[in-house]
Amino acid sequence: MTAQHRTPTREGVVEAAARIAAILPPTPLLPVEIGGTACWIKAESLQPVGAFKIRGGWNRLSTLTPEQAAGGVIGVSSGNHAQGVAWAAARLGIAATIVMPNDAPAVKLANVKALGAGVVLYDRPGGEDRDAIARKLCEDRGATLVHAYGDPWIIEGQGSAGIEIAQQLGREPGRIVAPCGGGGLTAGLALACPSAAIVPVEPEGWDDVRRSLAAGEILPVGPNPPATACDALQTPATWPINFAVLKERCSPGLAVSEREVRDAQRFAFARLRLVVEPGGAVALAAALAGKVALDADTVIVASGGNVDPAQFAGVIASDT
Amino acid sequence: MTAQHRTPTREGVVEAAARIAAILPPTPLLPVEIGGTACWIKAESLQPVGAFKIRGGWNRLSTLTPEQAAGGVIGVSSGNHAQGVAWAAARLGIAATIVMPNDAPAVKLANVKALGAGVVLYDRPGGEDRDAIARKLCEDRGATLVHAYGDPWIIEGQGSAGIEIAQQLGREPGRIVAPCGGGGLTAGLALACPSAAIVPVEPEGWDDVRRSLAAGEILPVGPNPPATACDALQTPATWPINFAVLKERCSPGLAVSEREVRDAQRFAFARLRLVVEPGGAVALAAALAGKVALDADTVIVASGGNVDPAQFAGVIASDT
Repeated sequence: MTAQHRTPTREGVVEAAARIAAILPPTPLLPVEIGGTACWIKAESLQPVGAFKIRGGWNRLSTLTPEQAAGGVIGVSSGNHAQGVAWAAARLGIAATIVMPNDAPAVKLANVKALGAGVVLYDRPGGEDRDAIARKLCEDRGATLVHAYGDPWIIEGQGSAGIEIAQQLGREPGRIVAPCGGGGLTAGLALACPSAAIVPVEPEGWDDVRRSLAAGEILPVGPNPPATACDALQTPATWPINFAVLKERCSPGLAVSEREVRDAQRFAFARLRLVVEPGGAVALAAALAGKVALDADTVIVASGGNVDPAQFAGVIASDT
Repeated sequence: MTAQHRTPTREGVVEAAARIAAILPPTPLLPVEIGGTACWIKAESLQPVGAFKIRGGWNRLSTLTPEQAAGGVIGVSSGNHAQGVAWAAARLGIAATIVMPNDAPAVKLANVKALGAGVVLYDRPGGEDRDAIARKLCEDRGATLVHAYGDPWIIEGQGSAGIEIAQQLGREPGRIVAPCGGGGLTAGLALACPSAAIVPVEPEGWDDVRRSLAAGEILPVGPNPPATACDALQTPATWPINFAVLKERCSPGLAVSEREVRDAQRFAFARLRLVVEPGGAVALAAALAGKVALDADTVIVASGGNVDPAQFAGVIASDT
């Protein structure tokens, strides 16, 4: 069994939470009222890199063997995992190169480069296979692949957010509503909080996890998926290591429209004074649209806040 | 000696902090790097009403006598104190009316009304005396005036932010850089953290506290002050109850330009993923402009985040 095939565990999440607490303060759990019901927002957008991905990045890179660390790491990401890996690599003195789509938000590209990581672009709209590019880079350089979600250390690292939530709430939450791309965060939260209902939310047309949960097997995003502002959630399919957790704990999954995502960004701006990127706002969008039950034990994850100024300005200055 | 002339004390701040901790979670102390130096942001913009003013409002209204509570309260505010008073009044079942300027941001007027408070507008550009209007309302209705800064309970309530900062940092901060309007927050922080340097920051042309500290006596804003986006800091003069604290602890004061304020709003958006209003961004502006020394014991207060979407969109979509 290779390292990547190790099964992630709750013990691994607890250990990851300790590693992360040693270097990062907990993100706030903010009270919010939605439709007259008080619930909570876990503001992962307030992490130093603007997304929960710093958790998995730190957990994976800080547990590499000295030999692995010396060989450097290769990541694959539209930008938030990239920043998490780059942030951890810079602090640990590990060389990092990220395979990023050529249509990633400019702000994410700039942030990754500012953190000192190398960037290799691939043609996402043209359908180029990013995983193949990353595998080749790893072979050529003797580097370790740090996958954005199909990795037990990454899943356990993301799950540390669930340990924090339970500490901050003083109890395990009854329900966590979270954005879902490949399923790293949702699988980690499921492991962290064994008795909580986990509700993964995706953009319409990119709701392969919702469809996979309904079918009981992994289904990829369909051909010609619609355009979405949620760049962080444009994953072609979840992986078996994630789905093994999700299928036991997360059902049903939910999908939200692009308009519902913009409404959530505006709500976050006006009522929470938070900058939330489209992909980070889908769970809040589902809550605001009345698609999920809410109560005082419900936590909604706002997972990221890296958004190009023009996109954000356009959304908040409009009501459509 | 009337209640308003009671001297605010550190003991009063500690009591206020306990009252506030019982109803509001602490706002986050976020790590930030400015010019290569790690320091801290106290994100008061993440309070439920989007500003630290909820502290003073709750501390004042929750300590009214039953007779005072029955008579209702009158506040005077461009919007953040208004929301703090309205929020506390709604929870305590106290009638509240706020005297607000006719050029207050629309978002602040809407939020105050949504919280259930009455609003009386006065002509700020025309120079109408808001304090006289408030005094008359109090006389007519037998209501209690809840001044935005010239009140010991308000000062002690705002100071609770300093108690939280020391708890979160694990030590008293060496320096707190904070926006300054009438001096309620800065006086409260000075009482809360007796060994910290307190640095009040104001918009250029509205820097009456800076000039007062330099002169050793209260000086008002000069005639025909410049236009400023910092509506929350357009106070004509500090009050003796505030200045008595400030003159012992806060010197020098700093002033920032409108351009520096916009730069700080953009930094907060892009690097902290926080929505900060112009008046809430002046301390960060001073730090980014190199006007104040920074170190790991320095805390910068981002005091509010209630900003009209068009203003914020215009700032982040531009670089001027």
